[in-house]
Amino acid sequence: MKQNSKFSAAILIIGNEILSGRTQDTNTSTIAQWLNSIGVKVNEVRVIPDIEDTIIETINHLRKVHNYVFTTGGIGPTHDDITAQSISKAFNLEYEIHKEAFKILEAYYKVGEFNEGRQKMVWMPRNANLILNPTSGAPGFSVENVFCLPGVPSILKSMLGGLKNRIVGGDPILSCTISLRTVESEIANSLTKVQDQNKDVEIGSYPFFQAGKLGVSIVIRSENQSKIDTCNTQILEFVKQKKIEIVDR
Amino acid sequence: MKQNSKFSAAILIIGNEILSGRTQDTNTSTIAQWLNSIGVKVNEVRVIPDIEDTIIETINHLRKVHNYVFTTGGIGPTHDDITAQSISKAFNLEYEIHKEAFKILEAYYKVGEFNEGRQKMVWMPRNANLILNPTSGAPGFSVENVFCLPGVPSILKSMLGGLKNRIVGGDPILSCTISLRTVESEIANSLTKVQDQNKDVEIGSYPFFQAGKLGVSIVIRSENQSKIDTCNTQILEFVKQKKIEIVDR
Repeated sequence: MKQNSKFSAAILIIGNEILSGRTQDTNTSTIAQWLNSIGVKVNEVRVIPDIEDTIIETINHLRKVHNYVFTTGGIGPTHDDITAQSISKAFNLEYEIHKEAFKILEAYYKVGEFNEGRQKMVWMPRNANLILNPTSGAPGFSVENVFCLPGVPSILKSMLGGLKNRIVGGDPILSCTISLRTVESEIANSLTKVQDQNKDVEIGSYPFFQAGKLGVSIVIRSENQSKIDTCNTQILEFVKQKKIEIVDR
Repeated sequence: MKQNSKFSAAILIIGNEILSGRTQDTNTSTIAQWLNSIGVKVNEVRVIPDIEDTIIETINHLRKVHNYVFTTGGIGPTHDDITAQSISKAFNLEYEIHKEAFKILEAYYKVGEFNEGRQKMVWMPRNANLILNPTSGAPGFSVENVFCLPGVPSILKSMLGGLKNRIVGGDPILSCTISLRTVESEIANSLTKVQDQNKDVEIGSYPFFQAGKLGVSIVIRSENQSKIDTCNTQILEFVKQKKIEIVDR
């Protein structure tokens, strides 16, 4: 797969609830924005079911193609939580009790509450590195370049900060949005010219509806602020010429 | 990839705006729920960037593995809309003006408004089948088992109904949700037993926070209502035994 950044990540969402349409994934956006801020670009997202063979096969592909893989979901205490055992198999590692994780949860729960169900959450690939969980105790883990996070959005969000020093990225990926009261076809040609003159900047055009009115957001993305500024200037020039209204969004 | 349904679909989301985290995808949920209602199961979702080689490679993989592939995004008039030309290349078809689509848009727009930008939207793979767009005119299209839809959620939604007769599915995939005021570890063992006794039913367990309280939703999915009922009865038995409160959600 062709990559468009120096530091590339994939997100692997493990969960039938996303595939069935019952739950809308929000973790992709959370992880992607955080990774952009530390100079890593998400080049691929996959959503797969809770099927061991599929998880193993997908992990073993993604971890070779990308610098980092982030998985979400499947690390809880129920029968459909099979991420840890699948990752163990993907890496040919023993699936066993992680002593440090055991200590953390033993201390986290009141006496008698660290039951069999909860103890399942300390089974991990041998020598996995823990990802601490400030919200609900049970840690995630990483093996090599694969980082396994829970599916519950608020818990996942609280765990990202602790990962920062374990991810090597580039310059933060910056962006600038210009929202216009127009339709895409009115600006398509002018925008193509700007893109052609600034080939290493990513320029996207996204129609929106707001308060019953059509609009277009132009998003400029690059690791280089001055390149963004150049595009911004060129876009604002044709916007002015065409007398298109700029709107807040 | 191992499939868990007779009629399998993949969703391919084409768009840098999802990968950057700027926009949260909602189309997966819309398409998946609609497909479930006509007996097709989504077994895989991928999100990829607006890069031609990546689109071609991914389409040519997915269309062989699944009965149906649904793409979203990249069929508008701007430079970053490259789905139609990429699909043409994936199928080795000419990328050309689609006469029927041209007529539709010529009639849709007022005289003089069917400009060059808009005309880009009638370029499609040769002999593509149109997917009519009751919202904003510009049709999607299908080639063999690949169905290309726009990225704007409200427009996409309005186009699905017109596809119904072109998708052969099985029995609708039914589901039943039981939401409980408990935590997963309390029910993990009992739920595993129910799953073990009903191996061809998909039982998922999903923790939630609602009004500051923890809960778990158990979701039972099958094409067979009586199998769902059996699981439901077995789950309600242990819920009663454990004196767990059932909550609305």
